[in-house]
Amino acid sequence: MRVGVLTGGGDCPGLNAVIRGIVRKGMQEYGYDFVGFRDGWRGPLEGDTVRLDIPAVRGILPRGGTILGSSRTNPLKQENGIRRIRENLSKLEVDALIAIGGEDTLGVAARLADVYGVHVVGVPKTIDNDLSATDYTFGFDTAVNIATEAIDRLHTTAESHMRVLVVEVMGRHAGWIAIHSGLAGGANVILIPEQRFDVDQVCAWVTSRFKASYAPIVVVAEGAMPKDGDMVLKDGSLDSFGHVRLSGVGEWLAKEIERRTGKEARTTVLGHVQRGGTPSAFDRWLATRFGLHAIEAVRDGDFGTMVALRGTDIVRVPLSAATARLKTVDPKLYEEVGVFFG
Amino acid sequence: MRVGVLTGGGDCPGLNAVIRGIVRKGMQEYGYDFVGFRDGWRGPLEGDTVRLDIPAVRGILPRGGTILGSSRTNPLKQENGIRRIRENLSKLEVDALIAIGGEDTLGVAARLADVYGVHVVGVPKTIDNDLSATDYTFGFDTAVNIATEAIDRLHTTAESHMRVLVVEVMGRHAGWIAIHSGLAGGANVILIPEQRFDVDQVCAWVTSRFKASYAPIVVVAEGAMPKDGDMVLKDGSLDSFGHVRLSGVGEWLAKEIERRTGKEARTTVLGHVQRGGTPSAFDRWLATRFGLHAIEAVRDGDFGTMVALRGTDIVRVPLSAATARLKTVDPKLYEEVGVFFG
Amino acid sequence: MRVGVLTGGGDCPGLNAVIRGIVRKGMQEYGYDFVGFRDGWRGPLEGDTVRLDIPAVRGILPRGGTILGSSRTNPLKQENGIRRIRENLSKLEVDALIAIGGEDTLGVAARLADVYGVHVVGVPKTIDNDLSATDYTFGFDTAVNIATEAIDRLHTTAESHMRVLVVEVMGRHAGWIAIHSGLAGGANVILIPEQRFDVDQVCAWVTSRFKASYAPIVVVAEGAMPKDGDMVLKDGSLDSFGHVRLSGVGEWLAKEIERRTGKEARTTVLGHVQRGGTPSAFDRWLATRFGLHAIEAVRDGDFGTMVALRGTDIVRVPLSAATARLKTVDPKLYEEVGVFFG
Amino acid sequence: MRVGVLTGGGDCPGLNAVIRGIVRKGMQEYGYDFVGFRDGWRGPLEGDTVRLDIPAVRGILPRGGTILGSSRTNPLKQENGIRRIRENLSKLEVDALIAIGGEDTLGVAARLADVYGVHVVGVPKTIDNDLSATDYTFGFDTAVNIATEAIDRLHTTAESHMRVLVVEVMGRHAGWIAIHSGLAGGANVILIPEQRFDVDQVCAWVTSRFKASYAPIVVVAEGAMPKDGDMVLKDGSLDSFGHVRLSGVGEWLAKEIERRTGKEARTTVLGHVQRGGTPSAFDRWLATRFGLHAIEAVRDGDFGTMVALRGTDIVRVPLSAATARLKTVDPKLYEEVGVFFG
Repeated sequence: MRVGVLTGGGDCPGLNAVIRGIVRKGMQEYGYDFVGFRDGWRGPLEGDTVRLDIPAVRGILPRGGTILGSSRTNPLKQENGIRRIRENLSKLEVDALIAIGGEDTLGVAARLADVYGVHVVGVPKTIDNDLSATDYTFGFDTAVNIATEAIDRLHTTAESHMRVLVVEVMGRHAGWIAIHSGLAGGANVILIPEQRFDVDQVCAWVTSRFKASYAPIVVVAEGAMPKDGDMVLKDGSLDSFGHVRLSGVGEWLAKEIERRTGKEARTTVLGHVQRGGTPSAFDRWLATRFGLHAIEAVRDGDFGTMVALRGTDIVRVPLSAATARLKTVDPKLYEEVGVFFG
Repeated sequence: MRVGVLTGGGDCPGLNAVIRGIVRKGMQEYGYDFVGFRDGWRGPLEGDTVRLDIPAVRGILPRGGTILGSSRTNPLKQENGIRRIRENLSKLEVDALIAIGGEDTLGVAARLADVYGVHVVGVPKTIDNDLSATDYTFGFDTAVNIATEAIDRLHTTAESHMRVLVVEVMGRHAGWIAIHSGLAGGANVILIPEQRFDVDQVCAWVTSRFKASYAPIVVVAEGAMPKDGDMVLKDGSLDSFGHVRLSGVGEWLAKEIERRTGKEARTTVLGHVQRGGTPSAFDRWLATRFGLHAIEAVRDGDFGTMVALRGTDIVRVPLSAATARLKTVDPKLYEEVGVFFG
Repeated sequence: MRVGVLTGGGDCPGLNAVIRGIVRKGMQEYGYDFVGFRDGWRGPLEGDTVRLDIPAVRGILPRGGTILGSSRTNPLKQENGIRRIRENLSKLEVDALIAIGGEDTLGVAARLADVYGVHVVGVPKTIDNDLSATDYTFGFDTAVNIATEAIDRLHTTAESHMRVLVVEVMGRHAGWIAIHSGLAGGANVILIPEQRFDVDQVCAWVTSRFKASYAPIVVVAEGAMPKDGDMVLKDGSLDSFGHVRLSGVGEWLAKEIERRTGKEARTTVLGHVQRGGTPSAFDRWLATRFGLHAIEAVRDGDFGTMVALRGTDIVRVPLSAATARLKTVDPKLYEEVGVFFG
Repeated sequence: MRVGVLTGGGDCPGLNAVIRGIVRKGMQEYGYDFVGFRDGWRGPLEGDTVRLDIPAVRGILPRGGTILGSSRTNPLKQENGIRRIRENLSKLEVDALIAIGGEDTLGVAARLADVYGVHVVGVPKTIDNDLSATDYTFGFDTAVNIATEAIDRLHTTAESHMRVLVVEVMGRHAGWIAIHSGLAGGANVILIPEQRFDVDQVCAWVTSRFKASYAPIVVVAEGAMPKDGDMVLKDGSLDSFGHVRLSGVGEWLAKEIERRTGKEARTTVLGHVQRGGTPSAFDRWLATRFGLHAIEAVRDGDFGTMVALRGTDIVRVPLSAATARLKTVDPKLYEEVGVFFG
């Protein structure tokens, strides 16, 4: 049995832990051998491979990034993409493929499995935690810890100065990082993409916070958007989906708060810091177990599936579930957290 | 409505986050007022209280320990203990009580609720994560992160020297911290209380590891015990349960490994470092939500219950569930992790 | 003997450690008592004081911020400012004053000492480390560690993607944080206020780095400025000193790199995260010793002086030395570090 | 010009940063090439080499350990040791040698330089910071930060429980780690090898601390020893120098405190955790600059010297200075810190 492995999409702490789990169990317990594909779907598309065995996975558990490289190459958009992948898999005598990635990567995997009968098992990956098929995805806990630590440090300044502190965190379509780090960090306002925010309401919270205690900390997801009438973000342009340009909502908001409340405001933009570096213990645990269960699914011939977390168990769900529905923050949960606003 | 709050048993990062969640929601949304009881059950037993309001919970979210103090006082073992508690609650006009604690603290709470009709809601707390009624308890993730970071650091020495490194972590009756930190840290041997270990097997893993790569790291829960025949731990004495003295298993094991393999071995004993300091983001999230849901249970008059985590939801279970059964590491899970041994 | 203590200027980890050192030694060894002045020079100006004794300094060692509060109030710019301070000190029977602060705060202190004979001892404070009279100031090491950790995390993304990563760090007039964190983090370009940068040279380094290895990391001090011809920063405006507006150089540079090299670039702006939170071990050591030596200077009647670090010794220098000359990055040192560029 | 590089003695964060500094500057600026010797003096003794060029040093800056391996092999104690080294250096056409290590490694280097005219430059390394020729050595700041963070976490338990907490840190002959981390962590007792401690005095501090505040934290260097009459450490044995066995002083002390004060005491033994893992920003800065200056000394033909830190400058001192005198904690400094005891 020869198994191919690839990682697609954006950076996410834990990718290497998944790979290590797959290879260690696959070689030691099942006697499989492995082919690493380079840079996501570009690997099987171009037959670009890398040695993947036990020495190759030694020491990678605590490392961010992916030893296989990644890309956003989509074979469905390439001429004869699927055919070339099938030919390369066949030429390399690859019996099964484990694809680790997000919505796009797993969408291709699902199609390969459903339409072309390729033996694929998926491992879900999204730092934003916005996949409805699984309780959590790896990388998310790391990102939340990093953002929380940053917020912790801002409290000091908030305590001794009169400045509003705005922190922009990741989350284009879902506010999970914002709501988790904002709650854990004791933020006074949390703004998420799921609910357009009212700048006047934000300013009211800011003002009431100043009265009750010290300067407020505002956590805003990069995809959070103001309500109609407040739509002119920094450069006033719309992106290709007709949304206002998301980049820079933190700085935009800081300026609006300054303008409307007369208080100074400062911005921190954590950016890619949130998705790099060593994974948290939880993410290593989850990623490793995803790897162990993915190779078990291969052994069981349970293709077209994806591993997922349910409570403390790793289960299998249809690959199509990966892309079915974005998991967004439930309004009830947002309301629950709202008790700490202002 | 006046609500009493107490924290009992050992230290655990997140206790203050629970208290803050209770008070913020209770005062702001329900208009309740609060009485803090000092030092666990000693507080209501002796009528020893402390002011508990919004200024009192300001800034405590990231702090370890508990602003209410804690103790292991058991009113069931005190003369007229229950009667004195009832009298003090009545005198202080406390309508409901939220007890945050482990098996012992919640055992008293269950009895107060079941036998004496006291209006009690429980919040489970055990750093060892060994409570079957909930997926996770707060404090555990923090402890695992601390132990994992220590193991990470030991890899450096293991790489460049020929020493076996033994790390003793918490876990008297359950190996959750050992198995999580050992897996996340890439340990080569993990020993847990649930399965007596065979020193010769440990030495075989140690020896094979030296051949394959660099020096091995052995994670051992403080409650792990060798098999019969290896029973003479450091001081040879039995504790009150007839168990060998658990303290010092790490150092004992290091010496046995040295004696049997001829390799040098060094020990790290993390001790209370694992249960102190600021909680991880996950623990703050979980603890805060436990607090919010506990006061909601009070509002609903749902007494005799305890909050618990199921997947990503906070649910209520009978208080008696808290003490029903120790959640130990499933042999299947231990076997799953065993792929990384040696 | 009654001693007043105040902290002025911006936030800086270690301020509380200084205060604790002063009070512990002053009360225990010399039997002095203390008056805390609130919010820098506003305190003695308005006679606004706070209790300052051993219980008041308990537990503050690891805390960021300052228990005394801070401000930028300058009594030299207030009507009768100096007279009001002298009157208040006299009314409160304050025999000596310890002023902890940067150039502005210590400038006032120097004038009070020199011109008005007030008994003042200074403790230097600047997170930017730009004071020539001392080897290091506290807070700086903490800021460098935070920035370095952020850069560490960005390497992961740089490794697996083709994006230029720009990190803007503190440093308006001196590049110490940029050069220390950039070197420690393994940055490929470091830009400091002391030397105007050439965007084409930056782009050349970026391009050569892509060829040799993976994506480059560019560390830029907030006060770094491009050479003539590249002067139009984001909003094109000049600040009150006739400098171009410094805020936003990171984002501006990222856009220029994108425009000129065709590579995607992303920005991280750490902002106040760098000056908040718990101090590093070194900063606690330095700050505590500054406190101990400041009170010793008071005991010796050695007024008009300031404590300073020379090698591993704490020495005293004239207060006027604090404001004499900005300590900037030596061109030779910048060149030394330049071996890692590109 | 071909330059050999070796690392000897115990683990120390920053070794890789030194190597990288040497190679980057030596190849890029001077056009040298390099030979890595494996496992300290064993490398040149046996002609065991490893490729050392720019790709070999890529990415090693943040890594603990040493890519060259280390050992305690002493060629002076090997038959024809010096002759074999000279022959191997000659055979490999090595013109100069950079030796990175502690007292033993640099002692050999000094002899090679002085007696045999070998072209050697030294880089000092001791995690204990006990070298009189330099203000600081790399690795020390990292160890102090790790120990301080552990002490920080213990405060939580100390606050909420009545247990004495004993932390054993590194330091066989000098108490630098103990005194720095103890001061930075706010310990209540600090015991160092330079001054035999009186257990009754320790117990007096413990008891007075309980009265004034919460439970005490005792930091003890592994090499600290009780005064005569208290000499029977755990196993009562003497080591080869006639000293009592140092290992286990923490646990021994905890038991003595329990016996004499009646208070419970718990021990944390950090062990090798202190010397592993990623270096702090300061240690990366210092180690990198040591590397840059060592290769500069080679270029200048300034052999028989060692780089050292004086204030913020890197200077050169005779290699013999490395082994001249142990830098121990000055009694005056210990007294200065003593204000925080009890």
